[in-house]
Amino acid sequence: MGAKSLPSTRIARLQAKLKRKKFDAVLISQPDNRRYLSGYTAKDHGIQEPAGFLLIPANGKPYLLTDSRFTLQAEQETSGFEIAIYTKGLIKLLKKLLPQIGVQRLAFESHYTLHSTHSNMLNMGRKISLELVPTKDMLEKMRLIKTEEELALIRESTRINEQVFQSVYLSIEPGMTEQEVALAIDLTMKEMGAEGPSFETIVAFGPNAAKPHAVPGDTILQSGDIVLIDMGLIYKGYCSDMTRTFVAGKPDNQYLERHRLVRKAQLAGIAALKPGVTGQEVDQAARKIFDDAGYGKAFQHSLGHGVGVAVHEEPRLSPLSQRTLKPGMVVTIEPGMYIPEWGGIRLENIAIVTPDGCEVINKDTTCLDL
Amino acid sequence: MGAKSLPSTRIARLQAKLKRKKFDAVLISQPDNRRYLSGYTAKDHGIQEPAGFLLIPANGKPYLLTDSRFTLQAEQETSGFEIAIYTKGLIKLLKKLLPQIGVQRLAFESHYTLHSTHSNMLNMGRKISLELVPTKDMLEKMRLIKTEEELALIRESTRINEQVFQSVYLSIEPGMTEQEVALAIDLTMKEMGAEGPSFETIVAFGPNAAKPHAVPGDTILQSGDIVLIDMGLIYKGYCSDMTRTFVAGKPDNQYLERHRLVRKAQLAGIAALKPGVTGQEVDQAARKIFDDAGYGKAFQHSLGHGVGVAVHEEPRLSPLSQRTLKPGMVVTIEPGMYIPEWGGIRLENIAIVTPDGCEVINKDTTCLDL
Repeated sequence: MGAKSLPSTRIARLQAKLKRKKFDAVLISQPDNRRYLSGYTAKDHGIQEPAGFLLIPANGKPYLLTDSRFTLQAEQETSGFEIAIYTKGLIKLLKKLLPQIGVQRLAFESHYTLHSTHSNMLNMGRKISLELVPTKDMLEKMRLIKTEEELALIRESTRINEQVFQSVYLSIEPGMTEQEVALAIDLTMKEMGAEGPSFETIVAFGPNAAKPHAVPGDTILQSGDIVLIDMGLIYKGYCSDMTRTFVAGKPDNQYLERHRLVRKAQLAGIAALKPGVTGQEVDQAARKIFDDAGYGKAFQHSLGHGVGVAVHEEPRLSPLSQRTLKPGMVVTIEPGMYIPEWGGIRLENIAIVTPDGCEVINKDTTCLDL
Repeated sequence: MGAKSLPSTRIARLQAKLKRKKFDAVLISQPDNRRYLSGYTAKDHGIQEPAGFLLIPANGKPYLLTDSRFTLQAEQETSGFEIAIYTKGLIKLLKKLLPQIGVQRLAFESHYTLHSTHSNMLNMGRKISLELVPTKDMLEKMRLIKTEEELALIRESTRINEQVFQSVYLSIEPGMTEQEVALAIDLTMKEMGAEGPSFETIVAFGPNAAKPHAVPGDTILQSGDIVLIDMGLIYKGYCSDMTRTFVAGKPDNQYLERHRLVRKAQLAGIAALKPGVTGQEVDQAARKIFDDAGYGKAFQHSLGHGVGVAVHEEPRLSPLSQRTLKPGMVVTIEPGMYIPEWGGIRLENIAIVTPDGCEVINKDTTCLDL
């Protein structure tokens, strides 16, 4: 987490919200929300092996609930939290703790609570007269608009990410495998001060670039191949995300034409991004470029997504997104074209929505305009 | 996945089970189960961004449900599956597909279905007269006993993991950081043919080893420091997991005494591991060694866990585990001692439960018996 000051301000904002909604407390299970509110960085091993939960009462001290493996880390990374250890699982601890601190109406995160956990909580709740209320995106809404402090961290995360890209870009040559390039990226990220990648680094050569979520394999780079690199890192808890596509050697005319179309779609998305429009409208502005050129079916995913403590968060720039964009939101703009057997091209930058439009925070221009 | 033959046998076994339980189909959302049944290796970006689902009817062809980003990969990696693409989410696709294939009673994985997804499925289900039945561990039970083919893959995964450890072990010297050692391990894993680590590699120096789940940082190795390395890799879909602890340079008497106690606890666990006993009993056999020596509180976690397509699976060797062990189960035996400010020692091997007892599959003996 950037500064120790961030979490305590956030807890205060959340507690005000809990009072308005007449919740006695909220149980936080979503790991990005957990870190956002506490600064605690321990990672889950999937939702089935969580590294902890937060119990935030509307009044009084917040709790971090975890097991004994994480006691030290929890104490070191948080301030102002009561650390409570469960030895026989979360439910038994809640059964004891909730009546102690007078919680009768408990909100929980419906979108990050397992059906089985909820069933167990219902059973436990009957014994202590607990009312359980699902919430959908209380924290995600708080995270939508970034503060200046958060924007500075996203900018810095992006700056380092570009440095890593540029450093590895210079070393790429025919004969290397996708895995080698991906490893060089991950290695350089840590050397340059990142916590690690914000998602599994994508490096795809030639026809492999036709898979939007390609996993780096042992394909060897040949001169003339397409190279698609999608990478991001975490810096003080904040993510970056950038994609560049180019050709090893000299691109042919077909590549150039398609690349320019993707870039044109990206610029159309950027031009459409401003306060007051919906995610759908921005997506549509870029999608139209593909449709008009007869490439509509080759653009298979959404135009972009929010970036912050999570690499994929709200707001979405998708054909279904009705959310209205506001200043301080941060999104990727990443049109892509995927043609089986030929390959793919994706170009991705990050933009901050400003009062007048948006600001692209990327400085890297490697192979953007060909 | 090891061999193309594995998934089809598994589907047949599952379909027989569905018929016995009178389910028309089961929806598989847990990613390890998904890969186990289909061979499809795409990874979720957390439970909130799944790479797909399986819909296995009691009769007829199984379905893989995913979005268009994964179409190619799904086609390449599976055989005998119908690939169905959702463009407006899983629920809308199910609403169309379930009546088409005559599913009225659908099982779902309670332990890997979000409360919010279940709510949406209930709403959808009302419109098509669908009965939803939670299941707890149908697939996890199938995965408990490994076939000879699976055991061979776990042995090979372990063999490579030990090779990686031994190679990196020789290069460790004062002046290196935890991160450098961890990176060398991850890099060597890929060089030696692994898909990647089976969990985030743990390298902890000195007092950092007091955290069972330490994250490698920029701590520099000093002569005389404890070095704890916990590492595992994935080979053809099967996991390994091993921990070694040693001292950089000459261990002092206190270290030697504590290390020998941990090893004694490990051997006690191995001696207790046989068909017919519960996970709890094996855990207790090792825990008693610590208790008797006055170190009971320093052993803060369970003795071990199952290993297979997931690095942490059933059966657990924990103080709470009532499950009876049977031949063909595979577990780690990993007692640990954690002393804040001093450090920690954990020793971990993998054992297969055999008809007579167990077989430790590790060959590596580096710094086990000091």
